[in-house]
Amino acid sequence: MRFEELSVGQSDYFEKTVTDADIVMFAGVTGDTNPVHLSDEFAASTPFKERIAHGMLSGGLISTVFGTKLPGPGCIYMSQTLKFKAPVKIGDTVRATVTIRELIAGKKRAIFDCVCTIGDTVVTEGDAMIMVPG
Amino acid sequence: MRFEELSVGQSDYFEKTVTDADIVMFAGVTGDTNPVHLSDEFAASTPFKERIAHGMLSGGLISTVFGTKLPGPGCIYMSQTLKFKAPVKIGDTVRATVTIRELIAGKKRAIFDCVCTIGDTVVTEGDAMIMVPG
Amino acid sequence: MRFEELSVGQSDYFEKTVTDADIVMFAGVTGDTNPVHLSDEFAASTPFKERIAHGMLSGGLISTVFGTKLPGPGCIYMSQTLKFKAPVKIGDTVRATVTIRELIAGKKRAIFDCVCTIGDTVVTEGDAMIMVPG
Amino acid sequence: MRFEELSVGQSDYFEKTVTDADIVMFAGVTGDTNPVHLSDEFAASTPFKERIAHGMLSGGLISTVFGTKLPGPGCIYMSQTLKFKAPVKIGDTVRATVTIRELIAGKKRAIFDCVCTIGDTVVTEGDAMIMVPG
Repeated sequence: MRFEELSVGQSDYFEKTVTDADIVMFAGVTGDTNPVHLSDEFAASTPFKERIAHGMLSGGLISTVFGTKLPGPGCIYMSQTLKFKAPVKIGDTVRATVTIRELIAGKKRAIFDCVCTIGDTVVTEGDAMIMVPG
Repeated sequence: MRFEELSVGQSDYFEKTVTDADIVMFAGVTGDTNPVHLSDEFAASTPFKERIAHGMLSGGLISTVFGTKLPGPGCIYMSQTLKFKAPVKIGDTVRATVTIRELIAGKKRAIFDCVCTIGDTVVTEGDAMIMVPG
Repeated sequence: MRFEELSVGQSDYFEKTVTDADIVMFAGVTGDTNPVHLSDEFAASTPFKERIAHGMLSGGLISTVFGTKLPGPGCIYMSQTLKFKAPVKIGDTVRATVTIRELIAGKKRAIFDCVCTIGDTVVTEGDAMIMVPG
Repeated sequence: MRFEELSVGQSDYFEKTVTDADIVMFAGVTGDTNPVHLSDEFAASTPFKERIAHGMLSGGLISTVFGTKLPGPGCIYMSQTLKFKAPVKIGDTVRATVTIRELIAGKKRAIFDCVCTIGDTVVTEGDAMIMVPG
């Protein structure tokens, strides 16, 4: 979408079940081999009790909505904040939802509220600034 | 490391060359099929002129330092901010560096400055809060 | 094999268990992030009740027999028809079988019957034309 | 989209540059290790002169349009025909375009013309039948 097609309150989402394969591939791409993601035995000794997904994987799902849906291809990702509130475990279906909070017409920028949820539980939240060509 | 082993100014990094394979796998894991990452022809029409990596992939490299080096396994990722300053292109070697800026002893939290660079160019910067068991 | 080594009724197969990793990678390679493949919750709302593999992944298994076994390297894939008869779910072991139905000597072409099965259930069927050097 | 939202002539596309990484991962997922895809030396001895992508990878790009854009999630893939007309080489940007040719209201089925192109060259063409919930 072009900047002129956006309005405050517009929202879209992307949803995905996080699998073992996602975690292995995310570890391979990023190099993040923290055993809390890869070792059942290590994870059992942590407060999470079982292996959890990389927090930044939730961040990636938020980015998916921007890059493919709202605003979609052509927009430029300027910044993102992320608060990791709860773990994502294997088999959890995570929904990343973004909602336009503010539009800055002079600079063609949109500020989004971002949240990742599993059912009613917020796992990640933050906000993002996107530049959207006119 | 335990919280007591940390001091302001400590720093570590992780470095990786971003390849086509990373982009294909990151697209599979996150679902982000934005053509600026996947299509040479689309990318040629953007200000970047060629395909770029997903911004959140740089975020993942920062997370790698926390999860594997400083503070390493056992720490809990609480929040991250990211400003995307310049694109990462295929073949670029990205170095993610984190440096302790502040230690909050009562809550066992460490605040980090985070930066991803390609040579002298800053591509991503931000800060992170990590909880580190004592 | 060369064209002269082929005879009507010859048959070969390739068999593989379809895993989560296959689906994540197939989504990355093709860009097909349809939630029926990626989201347990979305899939539960469809007639399939659970996530299914991309139909074209079965097509790929048929192609594997042509390219590696019968007729094997050197043949040229001219056409393929595919009917998707039943879903492939995660953990299913799919066998792709191809059988020579007709040989067209003048043009060095072979027509194959193709079928993918899970146990006795046909999941995909079709036919293919392959050019086979003499 | 629901069946009632479709009309003859509607069209959409997905575009992607085919990379070495795509070919390796497609080989891994399908098991199609034909050396025309994986060996520079073998490929140099074929009419193609260099390594080519798996034909079924183009089929996968067609499927991407159905599953993510037109008609999008919820549709059911019933059949696909594919004619492989020209090779796809590493670095080629392939555009898969689907266009509604016919709508069968009683059975809620849509017949699509499908074509994959590199610039003006047709590499794959065929047709598909999709069932689209009302």
